[in-house]
Amino acid sequence: MANIQEVARKAGVSVATVSRVLNNNSNVTEKTRLKVKQVINELSYEPSRLGRNLRNSESRLLLVLIPNISNPFYSEIINGIEETAVKQDYNILLCETNSDSERESIYINLIKNRMADGIILMDPTVNKKKLHELSETYSIVQCSEYDKEGNIPFVSINNELAAYHAVRYLIKIGNKKIALINSDEKFLYARERKRGYEKALHEFGITGYSDLIYHTDAVSFEDGQLAMRCLLDKKEKPTAVFAVSDILAIGALKEINASGLKVPSDISIVGFDKIAFSNMTYPTLTTISQPMYKMGCASANMLINKIKGKQVENITFDHELVIREST
Amino acid sequence: MANIQEVARKAGVSVATVSRVLNNNSNVTEKTRLKVKQVINELSYEPSRLGRNLRNSESRLLLVLIPNISNPFYSEIINGIEETAVKQDYNILLCETNSDSERESIYINLIKNRMADGIILMDPTVNKKKLHELSETYSIVQCSEYDKEGNIPFVSINNELAAYHAVRYLIKIGNKKIALINSDEKFLYARERKRGYEKALHEFGITGYSDLIYHTDAVSFEDGQLAMRCLLDKKEKPTAVFAVSDILAIGALKEINASGLKVPSDISIVGFDKIAFSNMTYPTLTTISQPMYKMGCASANMLINKIKGKQVENITFDHELVIREST
Repeated sequence: MANIQEVARKAGVSVATVSRVLNNNSNVTEKTRLKVKQVINELSYEPSRLGRNLRNSESRLLLVLIPNISNPFYSEIINGIEETAVKQDYNILLCETNSDSERESIYINLIKNRMADGIILMDPTVNKKKLHELSETYSIVQCSEYDKEGNIPFVSINNELAAYHAVRYLIKIGNKKIALINSDEKFLYARERKRGYEKALHEFGITGYSDLIYHTDAVSFEDGQLAMRCLLDKKEKPTAVFAVSDILAIGALKEINASGLKVPSDISIVGFDKIAFSNMTYPTLTTISQPMYKMGCASANMLINKIKGKQVENITFDHELVIREST
Repeated sequence: MANIQEVARKAGVSVATVSRVLNNNSNVTEKTRLKVKQVINELSYEPSRLGRNLRNSESRLLLVLIPNISNPFYSEIINGIEETAVKQDYNILLCETNSDSERESIYINLIKNRMADGIILMDPTVNKKKLHELSETYSIVQCSEYDKEGNIPFVSINNELAAYHAVRYLIKIGNKKIALINSDEKFLYARERKRGYEKALHEFGITGYSDLIYHTDAVSFEDGQLAMRCLLDKKEKPTAVFAVSDILAIGALKEINASGLKVPSDISIVGFDKIAFSNMTYPTLTTISQPMYKMGCASANMLINKIKGKQVENITFDHELVIREST
């Protein structure tokens, strides 16, 4: 593959002149321009778009920081980000942080080296002070999880209200003993969904549920199974379960089936997210639908607007309770 | 946040001297070293590890190119890559190519700008000539999918033999009308698994199966459902299905359940990959287990060894037929 040096040598000009021709800079004579273009054709030289952009101090790359690539919730958001970005001639680099602030720091630093034009953060566990300082200079937006304190724009849903709707529905179809399978409360969504759960129970005068709240270590099928096993071992078994993620709900469903109990006649289950899997289970899962794809599109547009120096506004999308066979 | 310039100014030395102190270069007097360290403490200056590495012309970043982030097959490989890389002080950047050679090119070019030290390719649909030229200069390894022609090292399994084992098992438990749900034959794995399927049928003298081979456009639940719907509409329905991906098999399972037929009494199903979700379905899925995590670890080690200039050898892992409830 020919490189820019070979083109310059063969055309008898400097690398800077080749670069000027490539960038349609007017400061080149017509004769030189034609000569350089001819050599480019002869050598089948393909200028690296990225190289050109670096000289323009644009990388045309967006970093997307996600806590965990294994949860389909994130991959559906990424689909939206990617399609939106590609249409506007950006590509994305995905960084899995595992909620580790050191790794998050390493990735965020890429923007300081101009290796990316902006960042979509889905897991702001990073040192908050550093994040807010960086966002004064660089383009950063948040998606799904966000830091309520700062000024970094975000795309999300109303997690408290969504959880409230799920639990109110479980109460209305006759449940009083409703368990909550929650994830780690270091996540904003976990704290807010728990608040929605408690709000619905209070509203209907239901008390004594603290024994029915389980916090998982992580968000995996196994964590859902383990949570459900503990809940089934209680003296007073729940008649319904609200899990803050479909992945946890599907693990719980599996555990109930394995114990010989039936969903929904013995225990009803509601999940959260409406990932594609949630419609492949037996029975299919009632869940809160988040507009993941749209959230991805909106955060990519928000970031690109921010990169262009435009003013952007926070967006809170609507959720929807999707009733299927598990309730 | 203090930067290196401020440290240099306050310590009364050049930026290069601060850099020498940070890199433990011996070419600095003890007095200067102490002064610089003191200022670093006073200003709480945190050197960017990445910046240091760039000066050493190392990015400590590995690019991982995957066709599609939505398939859990890739996320389990990525877990292995990531854990192995992080232990050796590398981080990874994930690039989703959607099997688009232009996007693949853009990502691969990152290595030319020293933005990454090496590449793990899981979808070599890129211009092969370019790939082979690049691999002479840069560190590239292949995982799962690979180009048989070239000299780029790879980690994979024996896809033909694995498919042969799956189909031979379906024949031995009494099936003669065995359908194949295959993906696009642009993929090596799709061509090889089809060969294994045909080999088993030939060995047992089974003919007339060409009507039972279905090629999907992509690998999604919906593609599996659609494939199964077509197969159920045939005059002679299959009594068993071998799908080249668990995702396709799970879609097919859903479609059979929806049609009122039973798995396995009416139709048996075997998938491929052993993704976590294959054990969450009803009934649970018989599948070919690929050691995805180990394949990820091995390809990260292979790449890091290649970056260090060591000789590396191709690795072909064993597969395993995992018999569960769907057969």
